[in-house]
Amino acid sequence: MEHQKEIDQESLKKINEFGKRILEEIKSGKSPTFNLPLRAKSNITFNEATKTLELGDKYSTRSFLNIAHTRKFMQSLLVAAACKEYISEGKTVGKRELYYNLKHSLPNSKENTFEDDIESGSVLNDLEASLNILRERLHVEAKARGSIYGDIVLSQAGDTFDCSKLGRGGWAIPGYVEDVDVVNHKADFILAIENDAMMSRLIQEKIYKKLNCLLVTGEGMFPRGVRRFIKILSEKLKLPVITFVDGDPYGFYIYSVLKYGSIELAHLSERYAVPNSKYVGMTMDDIDEYGLQNVTEKLKDVDKKRIREEMQYPWFKDNPAWLRQLKLMEQKGVRIEQQALANKSLDFVAKKYLPEKIEGQKFLD
Amino acid sequence: MEHQKEIDQESLKKINEFGKRILEEIKSGKSPTFNLPLRAKSNITFNEATKTLELGDKYSTRSFLNIAHTRKFMQSLLVAAACKEYISEGKTVGKRELYYNLKHSLPNSKENTFEDDIESGSVLNDLEASLNILRERLHVEAKARGSIYGDIVLSQAGDTFDCSKLGRGGWAIPGYVEDVDVVNHKADFILAIENDAMMSRLIQEKIYKKLNCLLVTGEGMFPRGVRRFIKILSEKLKLPVITFVDGDPYGFYIYSVLKYGSIELAHLSERYAVPNSKYVGMTMDDIDEYGLQNVTEKLKDVDKKRIREEMQYPWFKDNPAWLRQLKLMEQKGVRIEQQALANKSLDFVAKKYLPEKIEGQKFLD
Repeated sequence: MEHQKEIDQESLKKINEFGKRILEEIKSGKSPTFNLPLRAKSNITFNEATKTLELGDKYSTRSFLNIAHTRKFMQSLLVAAACKEYISEGKTVGKRELYYNLKHSLPNSKENTFEDDIESGSVLNDLEASLNILRERLHVEAKARGSIYGDIVLSQAGDTFDCSKLGRGGWAIPGYVEDVDVVNHKADFILAIENDAMMSRLIQEKIYKKLNCLLVTGEGMFPRGVRRFIKILSEKLKLPVITFVDGDPYGFYIYSVLKYGSIELAHLSERYAVPNSKYVGMTMDDIDEYGLQNVTEKLKDVDKKRIREEMQYPWFKDNPAWLRQLKLMEQKGVRIEQQALANKSLDFVAKKYLPEKIEGQKFLD
Repeated sequence: MEHQKEIDQESLKKINEFGKRILEEIKSGKSPTFNLPLRAKSNITFNEATKTLELGDKYSTRSFLNIAHTRKFMQSLLVAAACKEYISEGKTVGKRELYYNLKHSLPNSKENTFEDDIESGSVLNDLEASLNILRERLHVEAKARGSIYGDIVLSQAGDTFDCSKLGRGGWAIPGYVEDVDVVNHKADFILAIENDAMMSRLIQEKIYKKLNCLLVTGEGMFPRGVRRFIKILSEKLKLPVITFVDGDPYGFYIYSVLKYGSIELAHLSERYAVPNSKYVGMTMDDIDEYGLQNVTEKLKDVDKKRIREEMQYPWFKDNPAWLRQLKLMEQKGVRIEQQALANKSLDFVAKKYLPEKIEGQKFLD
């Protein structure tokens, strides 16, 4: 709980400084103004050293007395003031809740503060970048979906619980995880799993004991809240992340976003991206290696288009092993799902596939 | 655990009888045959007494030596044999895993057992109806997505855990819940919540203590696994379910499926539908009652079309209160989300809206 207090104090300090600066500008008769990093493709680069997407140093300025900026300026202050309130009251809100909470018509006008949550979301992104505080630390929750299972005792909001003692389910990862503490754990790595039915298989096969790992699923594309949670765990425990997804362009994309960050959130890569991630499967080589030719699926046009795009990703385009995978997929014209391993036997994934690949360090990186 | 054993014994018995009967028919030189209830709209009726959708008594027959049936017949036996194996081994599988597990080419032919999981899924539905055993009791998991939070201690697979001691998250409801036992609980009803961000709000506001209830969310449309879980809890604990969803045709649909069953699963209404459900909100009256005119959203064409369809639902078409809601929505031309209540204040939903409506029994039924 001390931890939570420190985080909040830091956020409040930044919001207060932001407000004070603007107040001083108003008092001294200037048009109040603030800067924000340009979050456009032209200002996003791949940092070869940190291996993440990041923003360059281009800035734009938002000025109250510029008519093109006035609305956004007003909205930014509204959101900042609301976040200050949420933090002070110890509450967190969802993105859509924020929008509804702040929508009202302005006095003596028919103008609304916000017309939809795209407007409020975009202002929130700007504020996050401008103040250099993570949205969650402004007490706006990320999308919650996904769960964790394994030999780890966590504490949050005064509760302590063991994620290996939750029956067949796991802990439902909430949208706010900044205040999660690890009481103790026994694991060598985090296994990040695309599919929730695969998660269930691996829980049943007790892979967390066999391979000494924590299981996390995001039920498809890992939503922001789950990526943040993986990042926090990986940093606190200094554990590598091993990604286990479908062998298709969408699986490669899930891995990419987890490891390198996303264009939309490039200003946050430092707090989201997990450079210490490796890719265990599925790969195109698995198809022949494990005799899975009969359980592949034909690529759709959208898959083929995505392969072409991924060949241009900064982290793939000079990486022979990854380029080989993408080309192989194009040649074979097929994708392979995680669950296709059940074609060998239900426990094949836990008894042979994962142990062989993980113990043999057969990763793509 | 005794409980689990009994369930499994019953399923195994039914599968064995099914197999024996077919074997006897083969031995006596007949074409093996089995019946299954017709799962078509023409055979689905609304039972006014039980208040659920159910199948009539029309049957169809599947006969091995009828060329139009041979493939499906073979598939049915494959699935039945596999389920027998899963139950005996104490494993559960996902729907897609089942497909992959059983897909192989037939000896001396290029014919595959199954071409996609739609084929295997449809055979599974048939088998479920024919044997009159729930898919989960054949050890095929339902879709898992959603969580529970509140004053209830559950046990499953040898673990016992308290769903009010899980930080800001809850227990991630797994796809197999047949073996969940309730150790103890303190609740007067189950609150079934559409939106996961609303779930987070209500956890934060400690509504489970204030109103003495359990919170369950399905993160949108409640998936089959969550509906089954709500049904089991509601029956075991003899608790009513109060549904809290968006005030729009989709929210009404979520409520309908939870309470009355669905056309697709009419043969399972007895095990899924929760007739003991009431609707607390959002309603069209809430908009004026609570001054939410500024935070409604315009109906789309698809919404308008759905309103017309819902007016024909057997449980709505003779229900004046529900017809009034549907007509009001059409007249106003708007929908209202749960989270729009945040427009009053963040805690409005927990301090005023829900207590007032639930304690005052202001429900739609």
